[in-house]
Amino acid sequence: MTTTQLTELAHRLATINQFKTNEAGQNRLVYSPTWVEAQRQVIKWGLELGFQVNVDDFGTAYLDMPGTTEPEAVIATGSHIDTVAQGGQYDGLYGVLGGLQAIENLVTEFGRPQKTLRLISFSEEEGSRFPDTFTGSKHYTGQQVDLTMKDPAGIQFDDARQQAVTKLMLAGVHHQLPDLPDTFTELHIEQGPRLIDHGLQIGLVTGIVGQRRYTVTVKGIANHAGTTPMNDRADALQHAVDLIVTLREQARRLNPDLTFTVGEMHISPNTSNVIPGLVTFTVDCRNSDEAVLDQFERLLQQTVTAPGNPQITSSADRWAKSDVTLLDRQLLENNQAIANQLGFKSIQLASGAGHDSQIMAKHTRTTMIFVPSINGISHAPAENTSQEDLLRGVELLAASLHQQAY
Amino acid sequence: MTTTQLTELAHRLATINQFKTNEAGQNRLVYSPTWVEAQRQVIKWGLELGFQVNVDDFGTAYLDMPGTTEPEAVIATGSHIDTVAQGGQYDGLYGVLGGLQAIENLVTEFGRPQKTLRLISFSEEEGSRFPDTFTGSKHYTGQQVDLTMKDPAGIQFDDARQQAVTKLMLAGVHHQLPDLPDTFTELHIEQGPRLIDHGLQIGLVTGIVGQRRYTVTVKGIANHAGTTPMNDRADALQHAVDLIVTLREQARRLNPDLTFTVGEMHISPNTSNVIPGLVTFTVDCRNSDEAVLDQFERLLQQTVTAPGNPQITSSADRWAKSDVTLLDRQLLENNQAIANQLGFKSIQLASGAGHDSQIMAKHTRTTMIFVPSINGISHAPAENTSQEDLLRGVELLAASLHQQAY
Repeated sequence: MTTTQLTELAHRLATINQFKTNEAGQNRLVYSPTWVEAQRQVIKWGLELGFQVNVDDFGTAYLDMPGTTEPEAVIATGSHIDTVAQGGQYDGLYGVLGGLQAIENLVTEFGRPQKTLRLISFSEEEGSRFPDTFTGSKHYTGQQVDLTMKDPAGIQFDDARQQAVTKLMLAGVHHQLPDLPDTFTELHIEQGPRLIDHGLQIGLVTGIVGQRRYTVTVKGIANHAGTTPMNDRADALQHAVDLIVTLREQARRLNPDLTFTVGEMHISPNTSNVIPGLVTFTVDCRNSDEAVLDQFERLLQQTVTAPGNPQITSSADRWAKSDVTLLDRQLLENNQAIANQLGFKSIQLASGAGHDSQIMAKHTRTTMIFVPSINGISHAPAENTSQEDLLRGVELLAASLHQQAY
Repeated sequence: MTTTQLTELAHRLATINQFKTNEAGQNRLVYSPTWVEAQRQVIKWGLELGFQVNVDDFGTAYLDMPGTTEPEAVIATGSHIDTVAQGGQYDGLYGVLGGLQAIENLVTEFGRPQKTLRLISFSEEEGSRFPDTFTGSKHYTGQQVDLTMKDPAGIQFDDARQQAVTKLMLAGVHHQLPDLPDTFTELHIEQGPRLIDHGLQIGLVTGIVGQRRYTVTVKGIANHAGTTPMNDRADALQHAVDLIVTLREQARRLNPDLTFTVGEMHISPNTSNVIPGLVTFTVDCRNSDEAVLDQFERLLQQTVTAPGNPQITSSADRWAKSDVTLLDRQLLENNQAIANQLGFKSIQLASGAGHDSQIMAKHTRTTMIFVPSINGISHAPAENTSQEDLLRGVELLAASLHQQAY
């Protein structure tokens, strides 16, 4: 990649990231004014560079560089244009603009592809405005999305969608949902520290972890902190603390890659001089092996319901579950060979976060390429990746698309 | 005690407890309409029974049965008329009406005392309306109280006080702050389970535990629950949990009577899929030995600031401290002898809760008598004590006052 191309990618990223609200970081919640500006800009670049542009009912943009000999065979890349509230500069956007740059490079160097190259800028992935995630890729792959769901301000998804999509219909844009591609490659920041901590440049994603979330409820008896002897308490918080220690240890022994997070906790009455009578806490656990998650779920249920102080009862309720997604092995091996050839230090790893790729993978051969996140930070204004690493990702993606489409 | 007297005490307790708000349980927050009704009723009974009644600037009522030969020597008993929000039927009120009953019994049986017998109905002890506690006994003993403090509705203490006190000035009531008594005996429910659990009828209070409250602050790094490996986390909640387990064990080893309560905890950002970056929790510890509290404070500071994960820092801040109060040994021994004589099963114990007696004890010889709390419950509508136990307390109190004043 030449300095001109580097400058071009950096310029496009900066252009989109300057569509700002008053909040810190990036705030492109789906169908918001900044989101509309950003998606319009992506579409304009596509039209300028000679892509055929489709926009579907959800506002996902498909930029096609039609193939010369096999135009019906589609090799796709892309990611999402939306961000979380107060998000970073690269999550999603890098996969869109890096993909655009990769295709532009290929066309500049090799002319039109034999198969169609498609850049996808998904409308929504983060679930930050409406209570659903991946609505862009869900719509593309024919999954039902509840159009009546509302954002915190009471605005209905369907109303916000219609208004926003109208603004994307620039001259030359077709309003159409294209067929699914033959392969899909998503370029993304890692959002974790594994690459950066080990001095690696590229992550090749084997799959996306399965994820389960539980709420554990512990009921004891609220009582006076001064007059209730230590051996006569039904302290829900102390019991919850013991459960957390046990569960953490069980998770650690079961599998070192099983993530175990107690992110949320509520204490009642939550007053310094009253023994807590009720405590709830969440458990978020993720692993790339469904069997490990099953085993942990059994341990969790056993531990939480194990008999102890008869005045304390506890239970665990699972309220979210997403299965392990295995990505395409052949595409990964091909990318591994290219990365080796390019001299990029790489690792194969599972993604701990969810991505559009897990939706696409149910319908088409899918792979992901990660680049390092400085300090492992994402979903925050401090989210960052070095320019060199951003370019290595684009270079690998371009070589992969070349291998598939030329 | 005769059945008539039993009925009289029960009737008076019921009369006061029927001054109700719409909330559950008893709600006699200081200077509120129910509080005014209750204190007026106590004063009326005093006047009817021939007591000399004084009311001070804070609304504390002093019902004096003047001594015949040594009227300037004053033997006092009493407690407070106010309750916590949604409180119980006996906390405070039992000491006021039980004291009234005891003096009435003595006068009926033995005529006027040689020394003056004084029943005190303190205006406020619970600290449930304004941000200070024991304001009744503090005012009586000459301690400064901030008259400008406000309740949650923004009403100033001094305004509420003036309006309420005006309503207590019934015909025959003197507006005056009497001198401090020679002794003070407070009859009270235990508010804990020690008497009831051991089949005991009377608790003789050796002292009131010292109490210290801390806030422990743990700062880690908030991060993605899915993409951050277990060995690369600075999880403030997991560190807080480990601190709680260690501190609880240190408290247990130090002294089995040292109470250790984590009543309040705050987690940030408190979202199931984010590793907590900041956790605070309170520690409330109490013991009747100041040295034990000092030792625990040293352990707490050592434990909280012990080096560990360099990405996590924690600190402990003490924001409340009340010293151990030793009550009068001779009064206790005298009451012990009387209890033995009456055949009451008793124990000497420290009070885990604060009481007006800890304020009075700084200025006058003070003792307390506890009666059992069913299930150890207090500060709640379920607060209860058997009629027999209520009467045993009054009988012991009457005998003690007789010994001192006749």
